[in-house]
Amino acid sequence: MRDGEDSIARPLGLLHSPTFAMPAYRLQNIGPYRFHRGGEVPEVSLAYETWGALNHARSNVVLLTTGLSPGCHAHSTLLDPSPGWWEGMIGPGRALDTDRYFVICNNSVGSCHGSTGPASVDPRTGSRYRMSFPELSVEDIAATSRLLLQSLGVTKLAAVVGSSLGGMTSLAYAAMFPHEVDKLVTISAAASASTFAIALRSIQREAIRTDPAWLDGSYPLDKPPLVGMALARKLGLVSYRSPGEWGLRFKRDRVEKPKAHGIEFEIEAYLEHQASRFIHTFDANCYLYLSRAMDLFSLESHAETPEEAYARVGARRTLVVGVETDILFPVEQQLDLANRLRAAGKNVHLARLSSLQGHDSFLIDLDRFSPVIGSFLEEG
Amino acid sequence: MRDGEDSIARPLGLLHSPTFAMPAYRLQNIGPYRFHRGGEVPEVSLAYETWGALNHARSNVVLLTTGLSPGCHAHSTLLDPSPGWWEGMIGPGRALDTDRYFVICNNSVGSCHGSTGPASVDPRTGSRYRMSFPELSVEDIAATSRLLLQSLGVTKLAAVVGSSLGGMTSLAYAAMFPHEVDKLVTISAAASASTFAIALRSIQREAIRTDPAWLDGSYPLDKPPLVGMALARKLGLVSYRSPGEWGLRFKRDRVEKPKAHGIEFEIEAYLEHQASRFIHTFDANCYLYLSRAMDLFSLESHAETPEEAYARVGARRTLVVGVETDILFPVEQQLDLANRLRAAGKNVHLARLSSLQGHDSFLIDLDRFSPVIGSFLEEG
Repeated sequence: MRDGEDSIARPLGLLHSPTFAMPAYRLQNIGPYRFHRGGEVPEVSLAYETWGALNHARSNVVLLTTGLSPGCHAHSTLLDPSPGWWEGMIGPGRALDTDRYFVICNNSVGSCHGSTGPASVDPRTGSRYRMSFPELSVEDIAATSRLLLQSLGVTKLAAVVGSSLGGMTSLAYAAMFPHEVDKLVTISAAASASTFAIALRSIQREAIRTDPAWLDGSYPLDKPPLVGMALARKLGLVSYRSPGEWGLRFKRDRVEKPKAHGIEFEIEAYLEHQASRFIHTFDANCYLYLSRAMDLFSLESHAETPEEAYARVGARRTLVVGVETDILFPVEQQLDLANRLRAAGKNVHLARLSSLQGHDSFLIDLDRFSPVIGSFLEEG
Repeated sequence: MRDGEDSIARPLGLLHSPTFAMPAYRLQNIGPYRFHRGGEVPEVSLAYETWGALNHARSNVVLLTTGLSPGCHAHSTLLDPSPGWWEGMIGPGRALDTDRYFVICNNSVGSCHGSTGPASVDPRTGSRYRMSFPELSVEDIAATSRLLLQSLGVTKLAAVVGSSLGGMTSLAYAAMFPHEVDKLVTISAAASASTFAIALRSIQREAIRTDPAWLDGSYPLDKPPLVGMALARKLGLVSYRSPGEWGLRFKRDRVEKPKAHGIEFEIEAYLEHQASRFIHTFDANCYLYLSRAMDLFSLESHAETPEEAYARVGARRTLVVGVETDILFPVEQQLDLANRLRAAGKNVHLARLSSLQGHDSFLIDLDRFSPVIGSFLEEG
């Protein structure tokens, strides 16, 4: 699709992605939206997919919130049979059991896989928002997902489940709408980002902003800041897995034809391959907005005191999952979150997993994640 | 000094840095040099400083090898009273006791603080080497330091001591010249870099190489690739300290006037400040060469089998120092190094320190480092 075309003005229905890939999802216009930290847009559309059946009472809804880069295609569908990013976790008898639950996943506001974000056209101007998009907060991702659910007639959630940025979103959701969440699952996330994680993400954003092709965000869509995006993605990738896993997988193995001052090690070839795929499927400005939202999030900002903020998390039961090898959201953050929620009187189950794959373990080590999340969602 | 001037053709003596700062060091031309992995230069000069007095037998020499960025100014001198990078570790009664030892530190070959490197002029062409400089190895840093010592009439070392890249250099020195080293001290280093460390350094180098100002290494010296260097240095800095220290020092504190999509957090302001100082004092091509040398180093490449390589490390006694919070050279690497040296029959003392400052602890936490290194060097 060329710049200037307005995808979000299309009627609700099965659409292709406005910018990049061509998945089949539903699109819902939830109307005008005012952002958590100010600014508004005349309309927000959210791309979403669902699995399982909504029951009569509309009481079996699980909202699945996403990390920074995934879209709403968490599982294959009839319309899009390609595997989703949590394929093994969703389905009949799976952890997110579609025999019981109606699972819904939407692409976050601010992203570029169908939902309204910086790469979308501002209907007021006919031009893309780019850096004029309002400041994005984790709270906006939660609040717009809720508006989507309301537009579908859903007012209460059986559960909100999310990992990484999605784990922050699920936490924000339960704090902002405490009477609307029965169970909360927050995975490899935290009440706020660590200084180290902020530093790593800040460098990623700087790599994009300092790419001359970025043009203050006004790059032509067919000439994005690929060099900065590749650097950002590589640094992101390095932080998503554990040093131990990198060592086991790639050791100090060299590529077949090492190039001095180029690709010499297998780890470099891997990062290059992964990054070169990603940079053509994600909008640079959206990356900046979503990355920054993670740094700015603080559950404790939801009340006068930290204690009150944790007390606001309204789920009847909460599952906090952490991974011992995670360097981006280290397990100490999940322990701290669980402890503070308990201190606020919450019913919290903490699962500390020894997966090797670091922050991304929730995408890979399903043998460990499935039973933990499945049994938590199964319990009355 | 302008591009084209030839500093290394100056007579031996007290000189200013050819490119950047203006320290007072000695410069020794050690003649032509053939590099470990091939290629040669018609002459190598090394900048060096010394502390203490050489004894008659020339048997009290401690060679101090450096990390990636420091020059030879490890301690203040009469000629340069500014504090050196290991000021508190060198001097009468200090860990490197100048009442007993003659301490010498040289700027590594390949660096830009006085010694011959990519920023130096190739006397054959009258132009700077830049990326035509031969492939640099840790072994070259060790071998050229040895040639410097030989030119000063020193044939045996009481000790070789080094941290980080310098810790690799000290290890290489003892493996390459096993009969010339009495004591070996290798600090926060390893027999080879971890996959994770290679990945982080690879991204740093890519940030420099993809800066359009880099010009394949041929940037005018007054127009270096500052943007790429800043990104590289920031990522380096983040990896030099521990996530725990970053958290304690900067938390999620915001700067006074946060700028959206700019500097918002104190950690970002700190990295910006540190990087903006560094990028004007270090040559980008030299950074590429030294960073890559760390990735390419492998002690095990010194023999047919790993066991033989460790057996070649010829020091009579070895001290291996590691820091529990180091993410770049994690303490497991020092444990492994010590174990393998012991398995090869070496006399090894391992010191595992709990400093908070990660990889850079050896520069900061002298209360922990001084007694460990001091008592090791004191023992007969």
